[in-house]
Amino acid sequence: MPDIPELVAQARDGNARAVARLISLVEDTSPRLREVAAALAPHTGHAAVLGLTGPPGVGKSTSTAALIAAFREQGKRIGVLAIDPSSPFSGGALLGDRIRMQDHATDPDVFIRSMATRGRLGGLAAATPQALRVLDAAGFDVVLVETVGVGQSEVDIVALADTTLVLLAPGMGDGIQAAKAGILEVADVFVVNKADRDGAARTVRDLKHMISLGRREIRGPTWRPPIVSTVATTGQGVAEVVAAVAEHRTWLTEHGDLARRREHRARTEIEEIAVQTLRTRLAGPRDGALDRLAQRVVTGELDPFAAADKLIADLP
Amino acid sequence: MPDIPELVAQARDGNARAVARLISLVEDTSPRLREVAAALAPHTGHAAVLGLTGPPGVGKSTSTAALIAAFREQGKRIGVLAIDPSSPFSGGALLGDRIRMQDHATDPDVFIRSMATRGRLGGLAAATPQALRVLDAAGFDVVLVETVGVGQSEVDIVALADTTLVLLAPGMGDGIQAAKAGILEVADVFVVNKADRDGAARTVRDLKHMISLGRREIRGPTWRPPIVSTVATTGQGVAEVVAAVAEHRTWLTEHGDLARRREHRARTEIEEIAVQTLRTRLAGPRDGALDRLAQRVVTGELDPFAAADKLIADLP
Repeated sequence: MPDIPELVAQARDGNARAVARLISLVEDTSPRLREVAAALAPHTGHAAVLGLTGPPGVGKSTSTAALIAAFREQGKRIGVLAIDPSSPFSGGALLGDRIRMQDHATDPDVFIRSMATRGRLGGLAAATPQALRVLDAAGFDVVLVETVGVGQSEVDIVALADTTLVLLAPGMGDGIQAAKAGILEVADVFVVNKADRDGAARTVRDLKHMISLGRREIRGPTWRPPIVSTVATTGQGVAEVVAAVAEHRTWLTEHGDLARRREHRARTEIEEIAVQTLRTRLAGPRDGALDRLAQRVVTGELDPFAAADKLIADLP
Repeated sequence: MPDIPELVAQARDGNARAVARLISLVEDTSPRLREVAAALAPHTGHAAVLGLTGPPGVGKSTSTAALIAAFREQGKRIGVLAIDPSSPFSGGALLGDRIRMQDHATDPDVFIRSMATRGRLGGLAAATPQALRVLDAAGFDVVLVETVGVGQSEVDIVALADTTLVLLAPGMGDGIQAAKAGILEVADVFVVNKADRDGAARTVRDLKHMISLGRREIRGPTWRPPIVSTVATTGQGVAEVVAAVAEHRTWLTEHGDLARRREHRARTEIEEIAVQTLRTRLAGPRDGALDRLAQRVVTGELDPFAAADKLIADLP
């Protein structure tokens, strides 16, 4: 059994193996999860948390690799959580892309962890904030959470990040159309990657138009997400992305929004843990209380709301 | 204010407007939701519930329309819940497809309702079982729940349906590869649509191979999901799908699995309602208890698990 405070101390000394071990402990919801969380808490709150999302094929992993390089040039330590969606029908080319990130595999100030969702977003939603706390407590200056923008994952990212980058690429007009509803809400910085391709200027123009239409109602008039064009494979534009992130951070701090976002993040986290705890209690054996209620619902004797009330009333 | 028992009586008399009104009442989680649920309960449990899912572009809406026609030929009344994913980055061609279903718009024994998820799967997960109960109580012989197979929605469908149809189409080899992990678990009947296209035989062969590899461990040796080839646009093969559904239903009944699936569905439904109720109580104002705990987590004074324990301990 590892000694938790010792592991945390090692992680803070830059020991990548200790960091990996702590993430495994929080990822598997081991019995020692609470002990780990308690040991991490006093050291948290220092990392800048970035979210990076976008539809498949826009170059998220390549952009992550380029961002790692840019932050390293500034002397910053960076931790990356790459969320692998394992949903049955989503795209499957992710693992190949990941390999490009291995350029940084030997740098002790870069830590990269792929997290599989194992077909359940609940698992991701529970494990990611804790893994993020490990990296934060371990002293990484920047923690980047990267996920593919399908389903609820991008909403989860926003709940976690101080600054969210939304990546797009030219020739994905349909994607932009489909994304109109949600994309304005989640982006603090837009990145149009593959800017050397045909249609990049058009993508930027479309985005500008969308921002001018939608932004005001959604988050107040002050912060307008900038649009940065990049070619992640060559590094072009990546310094501008880093600058836009810094600018957003300054803005958040000046407007008290950084504290507000972090309190919101903590609130969500506490609430999810509490709900999960209660869910476990509700579904627990208790002499088959839930099973008996389910049978009564199947026969039509009870409606499910009345059954839920009974279940809660009998909560131990 | 509508009189609920009267609305239920009208719905059972075949009044489509009453059905629509009841669905709206359960969809909006109106204050009368519980009243509606109580009035529906005694009339539920008779409909055969079908789930239909698959990746975008396989012809789900066309297949739904063809299935409606096939069930109508058998003299069965059919209700359809078409779940529209409104996730930011998912495909957007659904509304156009929906229109094809309007062939049945004037048939009083067919009821079709599109349900938007509004960017939140939680909303879908909560509203769909209740809408299903409305259609069940209204006396539809078959209730078909159709959804696009992205993210968690296909898991939700399985939790709802007696029989789940998974649609595929030729030339989507990547989709099948990516889907390998999850697809075997959710399908009771595989439908290879667009069977007149190149590669259909190969898709069937690949599926057979996957089934032979994966099935045994997953759901016991007895029910092997059949593979039916269709051309939904012409109706070819659709009668075979209906036959496969009937066969699966017989098998479920003979093996006691129909009751088991429905109890599982009811258990999930009760549990979700109970969790939702508790979630509302946890996040409720209570003089800002959650806010204060969140602030203590942000400063590192408390870890989120300890905060969640306190939140639960103070639950009213």
